[in-house]
Amino acid sequence: METKILLDESRLPGRWYNVVPDLPAPPPPPLHPATREPVGPDDLAPLFPAELIAQEASTDRHVDIPEEVREVYRLWRPTPLIRARRLERALDTPARIYVKYEGVSPVGSHKPNTAVPQAYYNARAGVRRLTTETGAGQWGSALAFACAQFGLDLDVWMVRASYDQKPYRRSMMELYGARVHASPSTATASGSGILAEHPDSPGSLGIAISEAVEVAAASDDTRYALGSVLNHVLLHQTVIGEEALEQLALVDETPDVIVGCTGGGSNFAGLFFPFLREKLAGRMDPVIRAVEPAACPTFTRGRYAYDFGDTAGFTPLLKMHTLGHEFVPDPIHAGGLRYHGMAPLLSHMYELGLFDAVAKPQRECFEAGVLFARTEGIVPAPEPTHALAAAVEEARNATSEKVILTALCGHGHLDMAAYDRYLSGEMRDLDLSVDRIEASLSRLP
Amino acid sequence: METKILLDESRLPGRWYNVVPDLPAPPPPPLHPATREPVGPDDLAPLFPAELIAQEASTDRHVDIPEEVREVYRLWRPTPLIRARRLERALDTPARIYVKYEGVSPVGSHKPNTAVPQAYYNARAGVRRLTTETGAGQWGSALAFACAQFGLDLDVWMVRASYDQKPYRRSMMELYGARVHASPSTATASGSGILAEHPDSPGSLGIAISEAVEVAAASDDTRYALGSVLNHVLLHQTVIGEEALEQLALVDETPDVIVGCTGGGSNFAGLFFPFLREKLAGRMDPVIRAVEPAACPTFTRGRYAYDFGDTAGFTPLLKMHTLGHEFVPDPIHAGGLRYHGMAPLLSHMYELGLFDAVAKPQRECFEAGVLFARTEGIVPAPEPTHALAAAVEEARNATSEKVILTALCGHGHLDMAAYDRYLSGEMRDLDLSVDRIEASLSRLP
Repeated sequence: METKILLDESRLPGRWYNVVPDLPAPPPPPLHPATREPVGPDDLAPLFPAELIAQEASTDRHVDIPEEVREVYRLWRPTPLIRARRLERALDTPARIYVKYEGVSPVGSHKPNTAVPQAYYNARAGVRRLTTETGAGQWGSALAFACAQFGLDLDVWMVRASYDQKPYRRSMMELYGARVHASPSTATASGSGILAEHPDSPGSLGIAISEAVEVAAASDDTRYALGSVLNHVLLHQTVIGEEALEQLALVDETPDVIVGCTGGGSNFAGLFFPFLREKLAGRMDPVIRAVEPAACPTFTRGRYAYDFGDTAGFTPLLKMHTLGHEFVPDPIHAGGLRYHGMAPLLSHMYELGLFDAVAKPQRECFEAGVLFARTEGIVPAPEPTHALAAAVEEARNATSEKVILTALCGHGHLDMAAYDRYLSGEMRDLDLSVDRIEASLSRLP
Repeated sequence: METKILLDESRLPGRWYNVVPDLPAPPPPPLHPATREPVGPDDLAPLFPAELIAQEASTDRHVDIPEEVREVYRLWRPTPLIRARRLERALDTPARIYVKYEGVSPVGSHKPNTAVPQAYYNARAGVRRLTTETGAGQWGSALAFACAQFGLDLDVWMVRASYDQKPYRRSMMELYGARVHASPSTATASGSGILAEHPDSPGSLGIAISEAVEVAAASDDTRYALGSVLNHVLLHQTVIGEEALEQLALVDETPDVIVGCTGGGSNFAGLFFPFLREKLAGRMDPVIRAVEPAACPTFTRGRYAYDFGDTAGFTPLLKMHTLGHEFVPDPIHAGGLRYHGMAPLLSHMYELGLFDAVAKPQRECFEAGVLFARTEGIVPAPEPTHALAAAVEEARNATSEKVILTALCGHGHLDMAAYDRYLSGEMRDLDLSVDRIEASLSRLP
């Protein structure tokens, strides 16, 4: 009767899995906004090193994980797969619930799975410095940790509102040696421009991206790093699913349902891509489901169209499910899920019918988070409470044995203020009107 | 070349180790403050259930861990033993550094190791509610988690200054279902009395203990729980050392030096008691060293004498190294090490010469904490940075191969403000004058 299914380090995956060659149709390419022609490697070279650009467009089924990256992964990987028996008991369900727990990483989330290889490939290409943006700080701290491992400098543009309200994540980035700028900042032309007009701007992820991209593009020894959305990010996260596949096999289980939360999509993709490979090969047949916040329902209420990845419109056009690049989600507590778009690869796969999606209001999610904490001990971050809410729903509805797999992509020790609001009854589920979505979608490029 | 040495759940210890029967002399008993006679089980019955009272005075070498407790331990135990290769490389040392990491527990520290059995024995004795005090909140959140597992109510008196400044730990306790009172509170006579005189009192651990004890003593279905100092607490923590012993054996190592941080002493005792057993049996010969903060140097500058465990003088008299029960340590960031006394069992063993002790100023400790975070990724809590500083010192001084073992008793995700002060240069090492210690010791009971 194991509680945690562990893999020893000799079973750490040796390669990432690329789902693209196994799909019935290739995903549509990103387009240059001016020409509407597909973007080529040269267009991306100012921002990313050659190996990451190659991975972005790769059609190889597998990419070997460099030994230098595996050595850092071993600081916390393989991560445990938890059989949530105490939760099952509380739900009085015949279902068996397995939770792949990524909160054991140094920064407490799945983000280092891609931060580490991104830092590695940049360092190997001779890059001296990276730039990035961060909202609440999860991605920024992961990349700061990764840069410390490979001797890279890092400048992070952190949305001003978070910079002021969440000093702990800023401190963590600085502890790892990064420089953190409140965005908008006077360090860039785009930031200065916004400050000139709006001296009190609270910032936004879109503005922070613009600043980080501007600095990277202007300097030969500096590149840019992104924490979700892109193909190479999803690729790196497949270590989650590869391990979970092996862990379930150790206890002779195959999943009947796989649920994961989606913001940009990297955690969900990382969990299910390897299982989808097995499903496409006829070795299992799980239902696969994305869970998104009702306040930012990209899959379930967005449009599948070409749109910008950022608010300011600096990125290539990406074919994806989008609420419009000017859409500003309500300030729900799952900050990591407040993204107007979706990973283009996942959007393509959703159109192919390879998984389904549901949207959940935040109070139902926090209810599941509290139940999980009280039974299993771990305090989930607000983002994976969406996945837990879907897992709890599946378990409650189960009338016979059923294996549910989900991912707990991070702990919530730095998100206690959100639980405070939930427990005090102050948290609200905000209605998102059709008009607001339509208004935003009417301004697609 | 393993990075983490893992044990699977089948190797979870089946019993706790009681060091008392292996000592050359028994520890002096606690005394009743009025009679100065040894305290008996009846004196303790209003506060603790019979099984914990029996463990407190036990001379059995081993105590079986109940299966219900092991089942909860399995949520995070066995914990990893980390070979800190990246730190070794940064130090360019021939030493090998092993770190037993307790931060993987649901609340991020070693405290649940004793919170869980304490909640279990109370629940089995028919107790309905526990009371406790907490400073920064580590112990309170561990006990809240444990009470949630066994269906016990919990009231926590949290020092007012922390209650106001560290809302995250309060939220965590409430998330697990506990009621948290800012101390001094109007819920008790002792709290009300203090508030009548000092309406703005910031509280203290001593006051909070008085409130928790008062409520437990006044109610038949309520008992009190303490997170360190007592024999049964040290006993429960020996799972740390038992696992570490087995993990080192798996890689064919025996420690040359064992260092641990000491506040009340439970983490240090939990780590080294099993190794001391092996040393006394002639199977290894490690140097064993306690590391305490220079601002609260109980072992190195305190007196070995009978003193109260709390500030108000409500507890039995304990023979221990003490700076005097009225001593108020400077507000260093390692809140968990700011205790005027020391576990009586450890004090007795120190007098027997079974280990030595050093005091470290906090900036040296944070320097080690930053180095550890940048190399190994994990952000240490301020308390174990003391142990890390001693480990780093040992490694720097090593001229040949040497095996250093230490414990990282918790992560620092909720202590980032302390790193902020260190990194900004605002942190100071405060001198502790002989006069201040002497003045406090002159008021021993």
